[in-house]
Amino acid sequence: MSLLVAGSIAFDTIETPFGKRARILGGAAVHFSFSASYLTSVIAIGIIGRDFPKANIDLLTKRGIDTSGIVHAKDDTFNWSGRYVGDMNEAETVEVNLNSFGTFKPKLSPTHAATPYIFLGNSHPLTQLSVVEQATSPKLIVADTMNLWITSARKDLEKLLSRIDGVVMNDGEARMLTGEHSLVRAARALLKHGLKLVIIKKGEHGALAMTPDYTIVVPAYPTEAVVDPTGAGDSFAGGVMGYLALAGELNPGTLRKALRYGTVTASFQVEDFGLERHLSLGRADIEQRLIHFEAMT
Amino acid sequence: MSLLVAGSIAFDTIETPFGKRARILGGAAVHFSFSASYLTSVIAIGIIGRDFPKANIDLLTKRGIDTSGIVHAKDDTFNWSGRYVGDMNEAETVEVNLNSFGTFKPKLSPTHAATPYIFLGNSHPLTQLSVVEQATSPKLIVADTMNLWITSARKDLEKLLSRIDGVVMNDGEARMLTGEHSLVRAARALLKHGLKLVIIKKGEHGALAMTPDYTIVVPAYPTEAVVDPTGAGDSFAGGVMGYLALAGELNPGTLRKALRYGTVTASFQVEDFGLERHLSLGRADIEQRLIHFEAMT
Repeated sequence: MSLLVAGSIAFDTIETPFGKRARILGGAAVHFSFSASYLTSVIAIGIIGRDFPKANIDLLTKRGIDTSGIVHAKDDTFNWSGRYVGDMNEAETVEVNLNSFGTFKPKLSPTHAATPYIFLGNSHPLTQLSVVEQATSPKLIVADTMNLWITSARKDLEKLLSRIDGVVMNDGEARMLTGEHSLVRAARALLKHGLKLVIIKKGEHGALAMTPDYTIVVPAYPTEAVVDPTGAGDSFAGGVMGYLALAGELNPGTLRKALRYGTVTASFQVEDFGLERHLSLGRADIEQRLIHFEAMT
Repeated sequence: MSLLVAGSIAFDTIETPFGKRARILGGAAVHFSFSASYLTSVIAIGIIGRDFPKANIDLLTKRGIDTSGIVHAKDDTFNWSGRYVGDMNEAETVEVNLNSFGTFKPKLSPTHAATPYIFLGNSHPLTQLSVVEQATSPKLIVADTMNLWITSARKDLEKLLSRIDGVVMNDGEARMLTGEHSLVRAARALLKHGLKLVIIKKGEHGALAMTPDYTIVVPAYPTEAVVDPTGAGDSFAGGVMGYLALAGELNPGTLRKALRYGTVTASFQVEDFGLERHLSLGRADIEQRLIHFEAMT
């Protein structure tokens, strides 16, 4: 089944111990789409500015990603500049310009609104909620969020949680939102919002998924060198949701497999800057590493 | 096959956010033995002092652990006092008295020296080496170590590594010893010492095992509440080595299973202070949680 993602499309300027890149294509919707596109047909919803070259749109369409729902704004594209130091666990933001993305309210066409699988990339909970309200036949709606909304828009975030099926967030965010240090307890507290799927990402340490009926843990792929962690979380979510959309069903078997696909797509993502690693990859590379990963676990 | 462990036997005084205990039975040889004893017959080698009650020896013998190689010293037993704060990832040592353990050189009886599986709990590399030199028919000798020896006795530690089959160490130690930040590279660098098994523990995040031919990753058991992390690493090693000794063979299948047993024994270990959680457990509890863990992964 097809999968829609609404989220940021950005220019990223990144510095890591392995090098620098200026104004490369990034953003949650982009990283998610690229990774999900190995597995299913993807519709990307977002907003770009007048400085956004057509070549970047072509990069997405060449992957089979439906870009017809991307809005063209009159100002510049959302851009972010950050650096990773030391163990690269966290990015240090140098500069961020939201531009039109800051007030962007996605409007879905009737065809897009009928997409069964929906992923809401990190943005204001009310913006995410507006997508939920437009969905006409949702099967699984999953959202990401961040610390900013947990502290500044908690009520809106809780309203969003009561209206969707699942969340993907990192360990620090899950702890902050629930006040529980134990990730098992944090996941259980999140389920109490009425969710049927909670996925907590632990960065280089894998992930924990919990539903009301079962728990699944997955180790990270043992990566030799992380060149650029940007987009790892969205790439993971793209692999997970891409497989769930392909499978068309959420059960222990499909979720376990989905988490492994997410682990594999994210493991490729961090091997180079931006989308660079993906440019030389096809579905066969994903399947090959999945087999390798399954042999390890 | 039987399994011998040489290491510390101690009184631990521990404070965590969940409570305090004074002078409870601990030490690497004790935690390792208890966890390994669910799976195979264990011989514990160590030294105790005049203040060591017979009831503690009885605790070990009741588990079927051979305590005949435990030496009685004239001074007090090794004791350690520490506290865990915040996320309890690291202990803060309040006081430590090595007593006779500081100069203890294990002497193995001919029967003990013929044990095929040997685990060298953390102590000076030359002390560990003296056990290696007494072993008459070793099949698998694995050692633990710590930061102190990496910085103060590196040459001795490297000599030890060239004489044994495997190591179990935590991520920080593996990074310190090899100078590699990536754990995959650190494990590979450790294998270059001629080892056939490298296991890197990542605390609450699972473990990575590498041999010259294959790599296995295992997530941690998602524990709801860690009451006391003391002994978790030795309990993990006990489960791993206990199963490898039971299986009598090192291959991808036995190693994968061994890592899971280690994960399960360690997950019980941290649920209460010292050995308290183990006192109400039997082999069936270990097997039951193993099944639960396998369903999750």
